Amino acid sequence: MAAYDDKNIFAKILRGELPAYKVYEDDKSYAFLDIMPRAHGHTLVIPKAPARNILDCPPEYLAHVIQVAQKIAKAQKIAFGASGVTVQQFNERSGGQVVFHLHFHIIPRHDGVALKAPASVQEKAEVLGANAEKLRNALAGK
Amino acid sequence: MAAYDDKNIFAKILRGELPAYKVYEDDKSYAFLDIMPRAHGHTLVIPKAPARNILDCPPEYLAHVIQVAQKIAKAQKIAFGASGVTVQQFNERSGGQVVFHLHFHIIPRHDGVALKAPASVQEKAEVLGANAEKLRNALAGK
Repeated sequence: MAAYDDKNIFAKILRGELPAYKVYEDDKSYAFLDIMPRAHGHTLVIPKAPARNILDCPPEYLAHVIQVAQKIAKAQKIAFGASGVTVQQFNERSGGQVVFHLHFHIIPRHDGVALKAPASVQEKAEVLGANAEKLRNALAGK
Repeated sequence: MAAYDDKNIFAKILRGELPAYKVYEDDKSYAFLDIMPRAHGHTLVIPKAPARNILDCPPEYLAHVIQVAQKIAKAQKIAFGASGVTVQQFNERSGGQVVFHLHFHIIPRHDGVALKAPASVQEKAEVLGANAEKLRNALAGK
């Protein structure tokens, strides 16, 4: 497996070199909206460790990231009235990975609504901003 | 969300009431082959806690289960020569869940090979048995 390359876009987001619609942050993890969401509120949760994917992630970061994913999933039910949540995590190109910093996709679901195709349409900035705020409020119990 | 129902088939596997192609077990988790695999070696990792899905799973079990998933993913690379791994986890019917005991799908991937459709073809017993043994050997470093 290739080594971690810190020029990937999520590393740039972590360093503050690229903007993101932040939903949550702590000392070990960062969560932000996918700008080409497969459903409203589609969130990515990543570790602050330089992990390419699940194959090289320090286990303590992996454990933390999935616990943050759980918080996001619960908040999505509140923020978007989701009746379900789909979690996906892709490793290496053949596994579906496109950005090579470990990330979990946490996607709110509604009955009878199929996911949009991956990376198909960039969402409007105002919609992303509003959705990130809804999630932050739900996480804060507002 | 509905309460946990211990009549689901994974609860029966945990109680030994149904057979499974076991890959790994410890005090908090159990891993076994999906009998309708989307690729050879497709494994399910579940907690021994009575968790319906990610929305109600005790966080310490969730952390442990994803760390076991990581071990399985690494073993799949060795056992099946996988170049990648796809992880999926479905919550509630709208989220894609069919069996209501939390489970992570860990699926070995190969370049240019698409996943089979979900739950489309039951694999032969001898193939499942051989694949479970390959994974157990890889986990044991054999």
